[in-house]
Amino acid sequence: MSLDLDARLEKQLAFIAELDKMKGIIRHTPLMDASRRETDAEHSWHIAVMALLLAEHADEPVDAVKVMKMLLIHDVVEIDAGDTFIYDAVGNADKAEREQRAADRLFGLLPDDQAAEMRALWDEFEDRQTADARFAASIDRFQPILNNHLAGGGSWQANKVQPETVLSFNESRIGGASKRLWTRIKEMIHLSIARGDFPAP
Amino acid sequence: MSLDLDARLEKQLAFIAELDKMKGIIRHTPLMDASRRETDAEHSWHIAVMALLLAEHADEPVDAVKVMKMLLIHDVVEIDAGDTFIYDAVGNADKAEREQRAADRLFGLLPDDQAAEMRALWDEFEDRQTADARFAASIDRFQPILNNHLAGGGSWQANKVQPETVLSFNESRIGGASKRLWTRIKEMIHLSIARGDFPAP
Repeated sequence: MSLDLDARLEKQLAFIAELDKMKGIIRHTPLMDASRRETDAEHSWHIAVMALLLAEHADEPVDAVKVMKMLLIHDVVEIDAGDTFIYDAVGNADKAEREQRAADRLFGLLPDDQAAEMRALWDEFEDRQTADARFAASIDRFQPILNNHLAGGGSWQANKVQPETVLSFNESRIGGASKRLWTRIKEMIHLSIARGDFPAP
Repeated sequence: MSLDLDARLEKQLAFIAELDKMKGIIRHTPLMDASRRETDAEHSWHIAVMALLLAEHADEPVDAVKVMKMLLIHDVVEIDAGDTFIYDAVGNADKAEREQRAADRLFGLLPDDQAAEMRALWDEFEDRQTADARFAASIDRFQPILNNHLAGGGSWQANKVQPETVLSFNESRIGGASKRLWTRIKEMIHLSIARGDFPAP
C-alpha cells in the first residue's frame, strides 16, 4: 500500500508541475483595475469561488461543489492547446481537436482513477448537457464581462468587439443557466455602452 | 424571494470585485520556470487542485472538498493585510491582528449566511485544530517548497533563507499532517542543498 501510494504521488507531482504553466497563459480579460491581463490560473481561481457564492442563482438546482471542481480544471487543456479568444472564429475552428489531445496527455499523467475523474469533469463541462455544466459555463462567461465592465472596456476595446456580439453570444450561454445573472450582466453591458467602453463600430 | 436574491447578488458582487485584488498581491514564491513571482490568486488555485489530488496522503482522514474550500479563501485577508513572508519575524508579529480586521471587513461584504460560512472556514484554517485545517496548511507549505525547488532556489536565494530554517519550520507543519509528503519534500530540499539552490550561510 505504501509503495503504491509513493508511486501515485510521483504521478500526481508530474501533473501538479504541469499545472504551474497555467500561471503563464495570459487571457484577453483584464484585471478590474486594468493594470494587466489575467492568467488562466487567476481566472480559474476567481470563477471557482464565484460558483460557490452564486450557485443559488442557477435556474435549475446545481451541485455547487461539482461546478467548482469543473471550473478549477476546465482550462487545464490550454497548457497544451493555448487560450483561444472566444470571439475568434478562425482560432475556434480546430480548438476542440487540440483540446482533446491536450486532455489525453495532461489528465493521463495522473493515476488512472484520478485521470478518469478529472476527464469526466472536463468532458461534462465541454458537453454542456447537464445543469451543472451549463451553470459552470455561465460563470466562466460572466466573469470576463464583469472584469471588462469594471476595467472600462478591456478586451472589447483591444479586440474591437461590438456590444451586439457580446449580447447575442452570451444570451444563451449565461441566460440559459441563470436569468438573474443574465439580467444583471445586461445592465452592466448597457452601462458600458452608455459610457463608451466599447470601440466605435 | 426574487427581490431578496437580487439584494444578495449585489452583496456577492461586491465581494467578488474585492477578490480580483488577489491577482495583484505578489508572493515571494516563484513560478517553476523562475520567470516571475506568483500572485495570491495563482497560489490559491494551485493548492486547491493539489488538495483534491493529494488528500489520500493525509495521515488522518480529511474532507478533501472542505480542505479545497479552505485553501481557495485562506489568503483573501491579504487583500487588506498584505502578504507576510513566512520567515519574517517582524512582519509576523502583528499579522494575526491585521488579518482579523481584514476578515471582518471582507467576509462581512457577503450575505450573512455566506459570510458566516466563509469566516468559519477561515477561522478553522487559522486555528489548525482539525485534521482538515492541518492538512490544508501542509499543502499551503508544500507548494512553495516544490516551486522553489523546481525554480532552482527562488525565495530561498532572494531572502537568504537557510535549509535548516526550511527543514525545522516545516517539519511539524507538513510532517504533522502527512508523513509521506514530508518525506518527499525533504528529498527535494536535500537535492536543492546538494546542487546549490540555497544561499551561502
